[in-house]
Amino acid sequence: MYREQIKVLDCTIRDGGLVNDHFFDDDFVRALYAALTKAGVDYMEFGYRCSKELFSPEKFGAWKYCDDEKIAEVIDGIESNMKISIMADAHRIQEQTFKPVDETPIDMVRVATYVKDVDKAISLTHQLHDLGYETTVNIMAISKESEFDLVECLKQLATSPTGTVYVVDSFGALYSEQIEYYVKLYQQYLPGKEIGIHCHNNQQLAFGNTIEAIIHNANYLDASLYGIGRGAGNCCLELLMGFLKNPKYKLTPVLKVLQDYMIDMREKLEWGYLIPDMITGNLNEHPRHAIGRRAGTDRDKFAEFYEEMIKDV
Amino acid sequence: MYREQIKVLDCTIRDGGLVNDHFFDDDFVRALYAALTKAGVDYMEFGYRCSKELFSPEKFGAWKYCDDEKIAEVIDGIESNMKISIMADAHRIQEQTFKPVDETPIDMVRVATYVKDVDKAISLTHQLHDLGYETTVNIMAISKESEFDLVECLKQLATSPTGTVYVVDSFGALYSEQIEYYVKLYQQYLPGKEIGIHCHNNQQLAFGNTIEAIIHNANYLDASLYGIGRGAGNCCLELLMGFLKNPKYKLTPVLKVLQDYMIDMREKLEWGYLIPDMITGNLNEHPRHAIGRRAGTDRDKFAEFYEEMIKDV
Repeated sequence: MYREQIKVLDCTIRDGGLVNDHFFDDDFVRALYAALTKAGVDYMEFGYRCSKELFSPEKFGAWKYCDDEKIAEVIDGIESNMKISIMADAHRIQEQTFKPVDETPIDMVRVATYVKDVDKAISLTHQLHDLGYETTVNIMAISKESEFDLVECLKQLATSPTGTVYVVDSFGALYSEQIEYYVKLYQQYLPGKEIGIHCHNNQQLAFGNTIEAIIHNANYLDASLYGIGRGAGNCCLELLMGFLKNPKYKLTPVLKVLQDYMIDMREKLEWGYLIPDMITGNLNEHPRHAIGRRAGTDRDKFAEFYEEMIKDV
Repeated sequence: MYREQIKVLDCTIRDGGLVNDHFFDDDFVRALYAALTKAGVDYMEFGYRCSKELFSPEKFGAWKYCDDEKIAEVIDGIESNMKISIMADAHRIQEQTFKPVDETPIDMVRVATYVKDVDKAISLTHQLHDLGYETTVNIMAISKESEFDLVECLKQLATSPTGTVYVVDSFGALYSEQIEYYVKLYQQYLPGKEIGIHCHNNQQLAFGNTIEAIIHNANYLDASLYGIGRGAGNCCLELLMGFLKNPKYKLTPVLKVLQDYMIDMREKLEWGYLIPDMITGNLNEHPRHAIGRRAGTDRDKFAEFYEEMIKDV
């Protein structure tokens, strides 16, 4: 698949940070930045701009906050045209401040929101655009929303300055026909805006559903190295790089940084195709149920977990 | 997805046998037979009917040959309406004999063939139908065939007595749009026959592509427990059971046998999402390259393997 408008966003550090409380070594973040630059990736997302009042720096690593100075330090000396993004939760904005864009290494802020918080998200996009940032709005948990509420949300977003609105399969619950439905719905109510896709891999559909979104003209594509991310993780960057035919994308640097870091990392951190996460995805439920199960002694009692989950529904 | 005509075929022992030279314990095969019966699976495939002249019984387990007596012994005493299938390679038929269907526990023989061997496959289906078996023909490695040759093959198969012809993604190389193309091509040239789908998971697309085939009316669906199969393995049975809405299919017995056997088995045997297999899938190459790589000391040198593979192409 080649389409000039396609942009690939690597969310390894941001979504992967949900697995290790954002404690990635600087060495890895720097190596990833260099590799993604070589691979032609368009955006690298470093993490969240979270409130230090809500999330104590004693408990979380640097990429929970993404201070401008920290990003600048890690990328220092590496020549790159790749853009840098961070994420902010619309419903958790407290004292976080954003400098004017020309005073930071950051190019884009992605605003994550639930449908109910869309007014906060829109307000934040106005503030960010006034400071010169690109923005996206990533609407989470849409598989639990009624079309009535979602359409209201999209109509409001149509008036915001944001350039891109993401279809986010938070629970890894969607099948290809639903991806088509959401992408077309977003296009209908968001004329002139780009559509993004962010899939979770609970049912091994993250890559397949990303392809489905591409077929229907989504142009902003999220992926992470070896699929790292909370629970089942994300669409694998290496799969997406192999699929896209845009000559600027190169697979070899992605494979190199994967072999240098991710095989060892997967020995220490758990993500990927895990049956409890497959079950929550199948049932369109939040991954916290599966993650809680994996942390206990009954981690491999899949049949019992499934029976408990369907009793609760 | 509910469609009455859908049939699920479990190929755990057959395709999984390619990982362990068909040395499964009787205990596991029996537990699987009982679990799949409870789950409402339509067919369980026990293995190959291979020639003992070509493949020595000193080197392979019982499920390489699937003697009628061996199958009867393993399922003895378990009440079941599930049908039993075995596979035979059209290009490797030597002294193998098939009894009349009412003298064996087997209901169906699936004939695996390359396009070039289709005449042997058709001859075998005639022989098998005369003995009372159901048959399918599974055309392998179609992603390397020209449409001209494949259409000739399909036209010949249209005259055979076989009821079902499978789209087989041998190399795990196909994307959803290609699955749609093949399923529709088969339907065009095989009026009145059912279409089957057998996917490999090199690019994490086995389940997504199986769904794509279902959407286009393929009704015979292959899957294996926890995706076990050579290299990257197959579509996971537990995912397919979760997706299909036919009330006869039950997920819990599948999860139970998975937790009882497959987590330990995966510690000893390697299959699933492995980067060398992802690379051969992406390049539409035979998995033997990846499997050979995994057996050597450079098993985790992914970037170098990719560079070697694209040099050879």
